[in-house]
Amino acid sequence: MNQSTHTIIIVGGVAGGASAAARARRHSENAHIILLERGPDVSFANCGLPYHIGGEISDRAELNVQTPQSLRDLLNLDVRTLTEAIAIDRVNKTIQVRDVTSGTDDTLAYDQLILSPGARPLVPAMPGIDDERIMTLRNLQDTDRIKAAAEQAHQVLVIGAGFIGLEMAEQLIHLGKSVTLIERNPQVLPLLDQPMVRPLEKALEKHGVRLIINDGIAGFETENASLNAVLQSGQKLAADLVILSIGVTPENALAKNAGLALGTRGHIVTNAWQQTSDPAIYAVGDACETFDPIFDVPVAIALAGPANRQGRTAADHIFMGERALPYPGSIGTAIVRVFDTSAGITGWSEKRLQQAGRPYQTVTVNAASHASYYPGAETVTLKLLWNPEDGRILGAQAVGKDGVDKRLDVIATAIRGNLTISDLAHLELAYAPPFGSAKDVINIAGFAACNIRDGFLLPIPGIAEAGAQIVDVRPAATAASQPVPGAINIPLMQLRNRLDELDRSQPVYTICQMGKTSYFAARILANHGFMAHSILGGAHHQL
Amino acid sequence: MNQSTHTIIIVGGVAGGASAAARARRHSENAHIILLERGPDVSFANCGLPYHIGGEISDRAELNVQTPQSLRDLLNLDVRTLTEAIAIDRVNKTIQVRDVTSGTDDTLAYDQLILSPGARPLVPAMPGIDDERIMTLRNLQDTDRIKAAAEQAHQVLVIGAGFIGLEMAEQLIHLGKSVTLIERNPQVLPLLDQPMVRPLEKALEKHGVRLIINDGIAGFETENASLNAVLQSGQKLAADLVILSIGVTPENALAKNAGLALGTRGHIVTNAWQQTSDPAIYAVGDACETFDPIFDVPVAIALAGPANRQGRTAADHIFMGERALPYPGSIGTAIVRVFDTSAGITGWSEKRLQQAGRPYQTVTVNAASHASYYPGAETVTLKLLWNPEDGRILGAQAVGKDGVDKRLDVIATAIRGNLTISDLAHLELAYAPPFGSAKDVINIAGFAACNIRDGFLLPIPGIAEAGAQIVDVRPAATAASQPVPGAINIPLMQLRNRLDELDRSQPVYTICQMGKTSYFAARILANHGFMAHSILGGAHHQL
Repeated sequence: MNQSTHTIIIVGGVAGGASAAARARRHSENAHIILLERGPDVSFANCGLPYHIGGEISDRAELNVQTPQSLRDLLNLDVRTLTEAIAIDRVNKTIQVRDVTSGTDDTLAYDQLILSPGARPLVPAMPGIDDERIMTLRNLQDTDRIKAAAEQAHQVLVIGAGFIGLEMAEQLIHLGKSVTLIERNPQVLPLLDQPMVRPLEKALEKHGVRLIINDGIAGFETENASLNAVLQSGQKLAADLVILSIGVTPENALAKNAGLALGTRGHIVTNAWQQTSDPAIYAVGDACETFDPIFDVPVAIALAGPANRQGRTAADHIFMGERALPYPGSIGTAIVRVFDTSAGITGWSEKRLQQAGRPYQTVTVNAASHASYYPGAETVTLKLLWNPEDGRILGAQAVGKDGVDKRLDVIATAIRGNLTISDLAHLELAYAPPFGSAKDVINIAGFAACNIRDGFLLPIPGIAEAGAQIVDVRPAATAASQPVPGAINIPLMQLRNRLDELDRSQPVYTICQMGKTSYFAARILANHGFMAHSILGGAHHQL
Repeated sequence: MNQSTHTIIIVGGVAGGASAAARARRHSENAHIILLERGPDVSFANCGLPYHIGGEISDRAELNVQTPQSLRDLLNLDVRTLTEAIAIDRVNKTIQVRDVTSGTDDTLAYDQLILSPGARPLVPAMPGIDDERIMTLRNLQDTDRIKAAAEQAHQVLVIGAGFIGLEMAEQLIHLGKSVTLIERNPQVLPLLDQPMVRPLEKALEKHGVRLIINDGIAGFETENASLNAVLQSGQKLAADLVILSIGVTPENALAKNAGLALGTRGHIVTNAWQQTSDPAIYAVGDACETFDPIFDVPVAIALAGPANRQGRTAADHIFMGERALPYPGSIGTAIVRVFDTSAGITGWSEKRLQQAGRPYQTVTVNAASHASYYPGAETVTLKLLWNPEDGRILGAQAVGKDGVDKRLDVIATAIRGNLTISDLAHLELAYAPPFGSAKDVINIAGFAACNIRDGFLLPIPGIAEAGAQIVDVRPAATAASQPVPGAINIPLMQLRNRLDELDRSQPVYTICQMGKTSYFAARILANHGFMAHSILGGAHHQL
């Protein structure tokens, strides 16, 4: 290609678009790279917005990763902010753009077009939704607006307990607000399986967030200038400020009008080099659909990591063609911190596997974030899911106060490497007392999974699934202070001498605090001829 | 096998032996499991010993993971402390044991024997070495002895700057001692490549440790009851207490006398199920030799993680035979914390690859431990080594004040999954501002490695390897305050307009603070026809 006349137009900055622009410039000093942005900011830290509202990131300038001027200086980009892309003429390879301030239009020719329009917060049509006290969070202007409104507000309602809703609830508590968090699903963070988010819900409640689950928003009413949210249950809640964080929808109008292929949820379909159905047009970031490499199905992940790497991929493909490294798909690794507790996921959840009708096996284990004898260790709860046919890891979720991100990263890497439960059992992770354990929670999950595969551990997911003969093997004092409904207490150390108290004709279900001693007990019982099942995760996870 | 008469004898408790015993008991309630231990403690947290000396772990009882009595109660083990294994009769499958207190001998029959004798600190023969103020650290008794001596001591000399030497130096500073650390190699932590340990050396110096490198111990002299260490250089150092931590040697006497095969460094040779050359005898832990799966060569790793999992493997093989999960070898993942700085390694170092004459390529990158705009981010320096033929990861080292363990764990998992530099570029790690970055340092190392492979980045390992035309692309103020010898300063933002100041007939070597801007500059220069090389890791890593 003749680089002297080579023009790349990028629609939308932030993660995907800015990454594509930067990478394209490293390929060529001569290419004309035009970056169009409807708003005034072309590269800002959108993941940091809640933390600026809450004051953890005090300086707003920290959020402006690059300014239009710095991108011009650094990358010799033709940055055009306040410029909206209106329509694509694919035949003539031109794009119609509009100056947002003056309203005048222009037509620009491209060799390649990269669409990075992002996704906008969902705002459902419902009564009263247009009240200006109802806000969404997408950009720096939203941030300024919410920050100003929060200063005056006392009662704040956060609707939707996904990542942004959870982060906003925490930050508003930091500001001293009275915060109510509403989620229409029966749990916060619906992406995760229900028992795994209980520690997040406890953290919210402990820090004063009023949590309402199983109830969605139906509409809003104004009464003597004060705003009431009306829930689907009929409950009404007064609010000075409402943050609507119920999800996002891809900005697909430009692509749709240009006739590009869209996925079932409206995302722009792309191949492994981020090309759309028109090979001269790429799409990256929250607006595009990529694939899930675990089951090779379409997926759209609205997160910064994929967006950045997709932008890079598109730029590489423009200059390197099929020598460019293809994007390997997205497994959906994500994490959120809620006060002192963090939770996250990588790969598929149990509910998603169930919905897709795919076979899986699962185990949940608890272990210390680092050597339990070294100060500061916290419990990490890890749920592992694998394919019972070949042992391949399908997904994992983790929750706790320390070391959650590390375990998710290890499993995300294991998924990329097609590792199995046997491999996890023997991963050789970095150990010194301040950092880990000689047998890390990852190893322990691998051990437990292999034990299940080998019939060495007969798992029961929860107390609800256990039969009548439940044996609580914790010390008597613990069992008394936090009783397991319907269980008899035989501490592990006494079990060998008290086997006669159990009915050998019935299965036994063992439970302990963390799910480890109950496994030990089940092995003793099995080796004495009982049909013995261990309740996963223990009282720590179940009660 | 007839489990009612099945006897397993385990020589040595702690990590490997105790793990083997526990796992064996889960396989069988009937097996007679005898655990022999020469000392009084059968299961203690040996990795925690330095932290008890320094007071971080204040309660000594925390270090006693299990007592002989708790192991009897919990696992129905036949625990025999203060009992030394003297000789093995392999033909008759018996072991001669001696009561350390009474001196009386006994003979015990085994079906399987598991050797877990560990490794003892190296104590070289040299003048004055028997002085009682010279101590080594292996067990709780050593801990008590050093703790008592440290109370009286002012000047403490730590000889050997490996893991234990570094941990001891830190802990002795916590106790207010005057600490000198001696290492005969030209760097601390000789397992790592030299430039990677500079931050550790700086941390030692910042916290008041006097560090002497390139000088080993030659002997000791007593002068008017005071002890002097004499170094190989002739330098003499007065010391009230000396900690000798120059390495360990496997406790192989029992195995050697029994005619079991030993490796070149005296370790007991084992197969993938930890069987020695006698299939009824297993060896686990610090005394055994296993294999390195990266190049399939013998290796011995004296660390707790491998020991624990080897113990489990031996027990599984006794009861499951070849259905047992084989031990997959050890890649040598290790980490140490020195005050506020941590460093570690997984897989092969550059010097080890060089010594073995194996082809490799390497890159060193710096990036923030989490989103740089979120408070508390620290620089992680990551050195990656890979096979230039297929891109497979051969090893990595990391150093920094936060997130070092996480990155080592990811690379350790990547090595286990045979991942390549391309895979690292696109690992999908958990990102939210408190935990990581949209492009993690792991991704950045993958990007840089792919750039090198693709000829996109021409790397220079250090300033010393650069030619004459060095361009410092940092801002003028930074370049002035920390000048790079021989460099001219052209800030990146001015580079496109100042190309005429450079000699196109000569290669250009770019340097910046962190190794990123210099790469950007090298791309600008390359795209303008220069032969441009970027100096890896920047001034942060080089100066």
